[in-house]
Amino acid sequence: MELLAQSFHMNKAVDETSYAKNSSIQSNIISVTKSVTEEAILEVLCKNFPESMGIADLGCSSGPNVLSVISNITNLLYAKCCQSGLPKPPELRIFLNDLYNNDFNDIFASLPDFYNQMKEVNGNSFGPCFIFGVPGSFYGRLFTSNSLHFVHSSSSLHWLSQVPPELDMKASTAINKGHIYICESSPQSVLDSYYRQFQKDFSLFLKSRSEEIVPGGRMVLTFMGRRFMDPTIEEGCYNHLDLLAQALMSVAAEGLIPEEKVDIFNTQYYAPCPEEIKLEIEKEGSFVMNRLEVFEIDWDGGVVEASNTVSIGRRVAKLVRAVIEPTLESHFGSDIMDYLFHRYEKFLDNHLSKTRSKYINLVISVTKSHKA
Amino acid sequence: MELLAQSFHMNKAVDETSYAKNSSIQSNIISVTKSVTEEAILEVLCKNFPESMGIADLGCSSGPNVLSVISNITNLLYAKCCQSGLPKPPELRIFLNDLYNNDFNDIFASLPDFYNQMKEVNGNSFGPCFIFGVPGSFYGRLFTSNSLHFVHSSSSLHWLSQVPPELDMKASTAINKGHIYICESSPQSVLDSYYRQFQKDFSLFLKSRSEEIVPGGRMVLTFMGRRFMDPTIEEGCYNHLDLLAQALMSVAAEGLIPEEKVDIFNTQYYAPCPEEIKLEIEKEGSFVMNRLEVFEIDWDGGVVEASNTVSIGRRVAKLVRAVIEPTLESHFGSDIMDYLFHRYEKFLDNHLSKTRSKYINLVISVTKSHKA
Repeated sequence: MELLAQSFHMNKAVDETSYAKNSSIQSNIISVTKSVTEEAILEVLCKNFPESMGIADLGCSSGPNVLSVISNITNLLYAKCCQSGLPKPPELRIFLNDLYNNDFNDIFASLPDFYNQMKEVNGNSFGPCFIFGVPGSFYGRLFTSNSLHFVHSSSSLHWLSQVPPELDMKASTAINKGHIYICESSPQSVLDSYYRQFQKDFSLFLKSRSEEIVPGGRMVLTFMGRRFMDPTIEEGCYNHLDLLAQALMSVAAEGLIPEEKVDIFNTQYYAPCPEEIKLEIEKEGSFVMNRLEVFEIDWDGGVVEASNTVSIGRRVAKLVRAVIEPTLESHFGSDIMDYLFHRYEKFLDNHLSKTRSKYINLVISVTKSHKA
Repeated sequence: MELLAQSFHMNKAVDETSYAKNSSIQSNIISVTKSVTEEAILEVLCKNFPESMGIADLGCSSGPNVLSVISNITNLLYAKCCQSGLPKPPELRIFLNDLYNNDFNDIFASLPDFYNQMKEVNGNSFGPCFIFGVPGSFYGRLFTSNSLHFVHSSSSLHWLSQVPPELDMKASTAINKGHIYICESSPQSVLDSYYRQFQKDFSLFLKSRSEEIVPGGRMVLTFMGRRFMDPTIEEGCYNHLDLLAQALMSVAAEGLIPEEKVDIFNTQYYAPCPEEIKLEIEKEGSFVMNRLEVFEIDWDGGVVEASNTVSIGRRVAKLVRAVIEPTLESHFGSDIMDYLFHRYEKFLDNHLSKTRSKYINLVISVTKSHKA
């Protein structure tokens, strides 16, 4: 798991293929779920009113979204403290988490501007706010016991800690040939492998957070998911990856990458359904569910580009590339990436000319129980 | 100050001129002061025995020294807990601080190896240990109130928060022409400007830490300094910079950089004497001094290179370059750097053929008083 944790990250820097410039879907999701986040934050503030408040954004990645999440939260907190006529806002400890090789330098370099903006927006009510980088996997402990009041995670928990062992490169037989995730025709063994890995990871996530979050503390989690129990019937949860598998197979058919390499490659991704989430939360037992909502997001993030010369396939391919390229690169080599994603564009354009696919997302809001 | 905080950092990455490969002096200093650090850590552990222990390394920079400091501390803590037959070691919160543009990515990438080594060395007594990156200036608050038990800082506090305003580029007249720091011939106005900036910075440092450190908590600080009150009589505290000024002036004489640019350039550095340190600690009033020691370090870090083909001047120039190049680069441009440091080598070789210069270092160990 450590090894995978090291090679898994979004595209760095700020060039055309970077995550920083291609995170409009994630930004859209943050907007959609803003009211759920606000509701949870206000609950924590009103019920606990702590002197020092620990807030964590797990799987924060880098780029503009990181600090937009944080400034939404802090602006809301300061405004609320101001309205209530409280003598002083709590000291905020804000923890930004992602894997060891996330581009933390990028986030930290933009903090001076962030602090200046905070002062402008919140004036005198801007209290002490300390920002920390927390490198490591959220599938495990990251913080000391009872130190957090609010945990946020957006567009991260659909990434597993590893490819399910039955499907990874060391497995004796390739059981998911020609595909890189669950698809319409997946055998039961593939579904089971993915579901087992999800259960293992998500239960460890909940157990770790239950030790770190104070009783009454809240957690708002948003991630890709599906509506129905059967993962093979809902295109929105696998289609974008199945088209990428088709692009890989078509590049393999031209002899540019070995087909065997495609056969043994699978993504460390899982789109759970509401029942699977509820079951793990009940089994772990420390959290009470307040909300679980399902919503759709356009494949291109719903962004209308100024220039009409860029096809929708190209826009979608760029967004997927920003999050998945490092993983593909380490397996297939960097030389083939431009060619592969160009092919992927064509498959996407063809697909989207016939049907308007959407990503399915889940947002859940939970409270750490006082009993635990 | 924010602007300077952004351009000031050590040389990044791991090439020949990087800080990561040229930090033998700092590593040597860490070894020399190890026993002082150990004494302080054991005091905190025995007198306070906290459930969760906050430890900060301020101005940690990047490269191998960062984690060697931390592993010294954690190994000592776990060994001590083991010896004392304590049921479980405290949860450790370890904070690594440096300015916003420090190479935190480099530190974080080496954490998986660090955690593995910790497990090997400490076996079952290896308890929960959480490592956080803390970007920002230590001349100001970085942590919530009463959250730290031990603060360490090595080879950082001789860097001021800014060039003294009377000596910076916006000053109406250049009062330190041909020099970049205090030297033998400095007028009183230059000495006063530097001393005022030191007082302002060091008192803010102490005030910030006094709010963050718990009563009974400890701080061990090591930095370049001098022995005597008069800063113009002790070569060990300015000579390496005066030779760099001579190299700059000689490159200017060749017309490769404008002499006016050298005239207005000064370093944001100050080497205080023991009395100056004692005075600020007394004025601030929250800390009791346990130790103040003066020691010498060779200009080349005392490292004997395998190959004798590298002159001592070259070795010293590389070590100075790793810490000072980014500041020089932003003022004089990157094109001249190789040429300048080659010239500096010659000046150093010439100087060191006549005299064996040493850096003067101070180490202080203080306890946060229970009265404050």
